[in-house]
Parts: sequence; structure tokens; C-alpha cells
Amino acid sequence: MFHAKIKSETLKGIVDVVSTLVDEAKFNIDPEGLEIKAVDPAHVAMVDMRVEKTAFEEFSADDMELGIDLDKIKEVLKLSRGGDILEIDQNDEKNRLIIRVGNIVRKMNLVDTAGMSDPRVPNVALPAKISLGVDELQKGIKAAESVSDHIALSASPDDFEMYSEGDTDSVNLKLAKDQLISLDCQESVKSMFPLDYFSNMVRSIPGGTAADINLGTNYPVRLEFEIAEGNGMVNYLLAPRIENE
Amino acid sequence: MFHAKIKSETLKGIVDVVSTLVDEAKFNIDPEGLEIKAVDPAHVAMVDMRVEKTAFEEFSADDMELGIDLDKIKEVLKLSRGGDILEIDQNDEKNRLIIRVGNIVRKMNLVDTAGMSDPRVPNVALPAKISLGVDELQKGIKAAESVSDHIALSASPDDFEMYSEGDTDSVNLKLAKDQLISLDCQESVKSMFPLDYFSNMVRSIPGGTAADINLGTNYPVRLEFEIAEGNGMVNYLLAPRIENE
Amino acid sequence: MFHAKIKSETLKGIVDVVSTLVDEAKFNIDPEGLEIKAVDPAHVAMVDMRVEKTAFEEFSADDMELGIDLDKIKEVLKLSRGGDILEIDQNDEKNRLIIRVGNIVRKMNLVDTAGMSDPRVPNVALPAKISLGVDELQKGIKAAESVSDHIALSASPDDFEMYSEGDTDSVNLKLAKDQLISLDCQESVKSMFPLDYFSNMVRSIPGGTAADINLGTNYPVRLEFEIAEGNGMVNYLLAPRIENE
Repeated sequence: MFHAKIKSETLKGIVDVVSTLVDEAKFNIDPEGLEIKAVDPAHVAMVDMRVEKTAFEEFSADDMELGIDLDKIKEVLKLSRGGDILEIDQNDEKNRLIIRVGNIVRKMNLVDTAGMSDPRVPNVALPAKISLGVDELQKGIKAAESVSDHIALSASPDDFEMYSEGDTDSVNLKLAKDQLISLDCQESVKSMFPLDYFSNMVRSIPGGTAADINLGTNYPVRLEFEIAEGNGMVNYLLAPRIENE
Repeated sequence: MFHAKIKSETLKGIVDVVSTLVDEAKFNIDPEGLEIKAVDPAHVAMVDMRVEKTAFEEFSADDMELGIDLDKIKEVLKLSRGGDILEIDQNDEKNRLIIRVGNIVRKMNLVDTAGMSDPRVPNVALPAKISLGVDELQKGIKAAESVSDHIALSASPDDFEMYSEGDTDSVNLKLAKDQLISLDCQESVKSMFPLDYFSNMVRSIPGGTAADINLGTNYPVRLEFEIAEGNGMVNYLLAPRIENE
Repeated sequence: MFHAKIKSETLKGIVDVVSTLVDEAKFNIDPEGLEIKAVDPAHVAMVDMRVEKTAFEEFSADDMELGIDLDKIKEVLKLSRGGDILEIDQNDEKNRLIIRVGNIVRKMNLVDTAGMSDPRVPNVALPAKISLGVDELQKGIKAAESVSDHIALSASPDDFEMYSEGDTDSVNLKLAKDQLISLDCQESVKSMFPLDYFSNMVRSIPGGTAADINLGTNYPVRLEFEIAEGNGMVNYLLAPRIENE
């Protein structure tokens, strides 16, 4: 049994995080909320998200798995405005999800979850942690996009830097410690990442939010932030591109 | 002889209705106004529109036919703003239409009307009549578009329903009698229509207007509404798609 | 040595003028400002622009040439807002331009100017001179675009006219002497021009500005206007298309 009511904008935030990596996802539901773990088809990135029942207007559920086509949820979201409440029910017998918004009823088949992996999130210890506003991150990404399809993230005890280098040009955004929310870095670290993945991840951070970047040298980056007004937590992991000497 | 002045936005409304079905149309003009009847190339839909001379700022005309390329009128409309007045004259000798807007003069050849049919509008008796706001119609169409390329319209003595069904999903917008302007339906009726045609027709209804839907079972739908602030009347007819048993 | 600070919107205005004709340009810099002369690849049009040092917030330079890829400047401009100040430095040893905006640093290789011609601007005497607002020019261009890919400009002692003729249609915008800022024309002149070039040139005139059109019969048109709030002067020259009899 699954019954929930949720604000259109909250559901949109949840879906945006996951659809950055996959088109279909397994929603692991329990009486206290839901959890989604997914790996992108190229196995470069991973998401681990938990949304508490407090993010919903109403929520009552047994332990269950729902395989959901995220594009279909997006279609329903387009029929609503930010403040609208969507009502979601799972119909056990027919293996269907029923979504109501206003006087519209949308019924959709669930996706078979048999083929969906349950990825184990590796417990990587990352020596540096940078907290900063999402606006700064987006500025650095935008600057990098015109120069290369990779972005290097580095931190020292004094600053955090986003750097891209192309054949003829380079671009660099440096934020001193006092321009960051916090910086916890004993010794310098640096890793390089595919820009499109990193950009998509950052795009799903809610506007005006702070994000935590956990960084090492030639290690994955972990990007953490809150969604659903603090009732959900996102954990992205993105593999580095090791530079050849 | 044909001379008229008309507000840009009024002419746009007239052209939008007809260009939904055809690129060129025969304007049947008489001293009291004009009439356009047209059938789309696939013979699925028909429009029958009458615009009174009161829709114009100035209007004086003999009985005549003008073959007009609607795309060219749209081009001229793009040179004007909503409140601008367009002045239209037909030059007998040269078989040309002359349109003035501000200090721009556009001259265009008329289209030969010899090949244009004068369709007879069938007098179909349709048992159910539903009056509703165009916003509700548009919401139902938008919901249907993500699921199928057909839409079923049905009415019962208690409600009006728009329904679409695809391979795995369905969507449904139901309006109870008290959510409609009026509902005149003795027994249940239902017909299915090509969604793109129906959507284009509804799109040419002026915003905030009411529309009348006349419906039967496996019969054409007749969509009626006013344009030009009540000085024009549109009558669309759209053939049903008969469902195979 | 080259060091300058300039408002984002001022630099954008300068770049827009030149990028209408070429992708890369030679900036001829002297202690008092800069000058750019360029011919488009098809040798149909030419620009001759002078920007005084007063257009800059800071400006200090030796005599020098900088070969600049205009697309890269546009990329940096996209990272800034209208009021932002860009700081530009040329690094002699590395043959690089360094641009700073906020906490972003973009470094770009300069383009070799060896292959770039230094066009001589012909001193054409043109008998008619028309001063008018850019809005009127743009209206005439928009009207012409739906009819032909050429536009005829003509002037008489009483008016200025923009005219386009296609196979079946024509369009015409006529401005009487009192609708112009000034008109200096002893006898009628008329020339025809490729519409896309003329349209692009007019598009780079700052909004709300006046432009001077210098015109003859079957002669190039010279289009003159100010940029950078009067601290720069643009001089476009566009070859006519001679009509066959």
C-alpha cells in the first residue's frame, strides 16, 4: 500500500535529482519515507537520496519497491503549478500508479524492478570538505564550459579553485576561504571530472542552497545537499578522470 | 470594390481560425461582412466562419471573392502591434490586395479561387451540448498529449469527460455538471477524435471565452465559439475516429 | 603593454559591430584608443571603427596590434552582467590575453595578425545623407524580410524609402522629410543591397540611437553611428547590387 500527497515543486525537486542519471528508478519505500539509489548507465556517477515522510503533505506506506518511469512523472508535473498538490496511490492488483492533480487522473504502469541494481554506495574517505553557495558553483561551471569538457576541482588550506584548460585557453575561478561557507582542508588536493556530469548534478541543487563538496586527489567527488526544504538529503558521487602524465 | 480597416488583433483572430485547416482560403465578401468555409486537405475537418462588418473599424464592399494566402497576412500582422489599425484595399485592375499598417505598404497578389471548393456544411443533429471555459478544454488536451494521439470526449447527464489511453498509461479529466457553464445531455454519448486537429481548433478559441461542444456517439463533434468580440462566429466540425471492436 | 578596464556592456557593443563581418579581428591599439578595420570574407562589406580611451574605465597602452578571436570575448561577456567591469591585460612574453571578471580569470591565446589585411577604406562621395532613428530602419528591414532578400534604399528631396519586391509581392516603407531627423538630398538616388548584410549592420546600432545613411545611385551605402555612449564611431560600407535592366 502506498498513498501520498506532495507539493508539485517538491516532487519536481526529487525527480530532477534522479533523472540527472537515469530515466527509470527504483523507489525503495518504507513507512518513514523513501530512498533512491541509482548508477548512471556509464557507471561514472551515483546518487543516494533519502526523502523523509515529512517532505510530504500526507504519507502512508508499507515497505515496498516501486519502479517508476521518471519521464512520466515529469509529464504529470507539467500539468500542475508549483503550489498544486499531487495525490499518488499505488494500486496493488493492477501494478499501476495513479496520480491525481486537480480534476485530472493519470494512471501509469509501473516498471519491473527486477533488472534494476541496488548499488552499494562506497564509503570513500575524502580529506577535504568545502561548503559553498550553489551560485558560485554554477558560475565556475559556466566559465569552464566554453574552454573544455573537463573541470578540475582543487582545494588548499586557503582557497577552493575550479579550473579548466583547453588547447589554447584556460579559465579559473578561485574562492578564498572567506568567500566560502567553510573550508576544511589540511593539505592541497586536486581531481578532474567530466564537466557535463558535474554540471547536471549542480543544476539539480535547489536555488539559494548551500552544497558540500568532499574532495581528494584523483578520487571521486562527493556532492551533498538538502532538498525538499531540509526533508531530503542528496548524496552524489562522481568518478574522477585521472590525468595521464 | 473592397475597403476595410481592422484592428491587428481582430484580424489575427480571424486568420488563426482558418489557418488551422488551410494555407489559402476563399473569403466570400458581401456588403454586410465576410464568410469563410474551408475543408482541410485530408477532409477530416471543416470550418464555417462568419464575421460581421461590425468587427471592422471601416468596411465597405461589393459581393466578391478574394483568394488569400494566409501566411502573407500573418507576415503583415507581425509588422504591427495589437492595437494597430490595418487598412486593406483590393485593387480591381491588378488583382492585388494592398495592406497599409503605419507607414508600411504591402502589396500581394491574390490567389486564384477557381480551384477552391465551396464546401457544404452538413447539418448533423448532435444529441449532447456542453458549454465550458476554454481553459478547461486546454487542460484536458495538454494532459492527453503525453499519453496518446487520440482523445475521447464523452458526456453523461451528470458530467463531461476527456479521456486518452495509450499502451501503458491513461489520463482522464472529468468535469461535473456544476464545473461546466451548462450541460444538456439526455443519455450518455462518446466519440473519439484525432488529438492534433482538436488541439489546433481549441487553440484558436480566444482566451477567456466559452465554447460549445456538440457531441454524439461515433459522430463528428461541432465546436462553436465567438471571435472578434462577439462580431464573428466560428463553427468547426471534426470527424470521429471510429474505434474498432 | 596593454591594460584596460571596461564595462561589460560597452565591450559587448564594440564586439557586436565587428563580429557582424568577421570572426577574428586585428585591434590596432595606440595610447589614445583603438581602431578596427575589417572586410567580410566575401568582400561585400567593410567596417571602420574607432573607440577612444574615454570609452574605457582605465586604458593604458603602447602602439600595438592584437589579433583577437571575437567568439572568445563573447564567451567571457556571457559570464558577466551589463554593469560588471572586465579587466584586460596583454602578457607580452606568452602572447596571451588575460581577462578578469569578478573572481574569474580567463586566459586566451592571441591570433596571429600576419594574415589579416589592413583594408583601405575607400573615400566614396555620396550625394544624399539621411539621418533617422534606428527603430524606423529596423521596421523597414523587418517588413522587407518577408518579401525578398534584397532591399532598395532611395531618397528624394522630400522623403526616404525602403522598398523590397519579390515575385508576387512588394513592401514599402516611406518616411517623409518631417519623419526623419534630417534629409540632405538634391536629386533622387537609389541603390539596392543584400538584405542580410544590411540587417546585421543595423542590428549592431545601439537601441534608441540615430544613424546616418549616405546614399548614391548604384553606389555603396555608408552607415554611420556612435557607440560606447559617444566615445566610439562606426563606419560601415556595403556594396550595392546592381540591378540588371
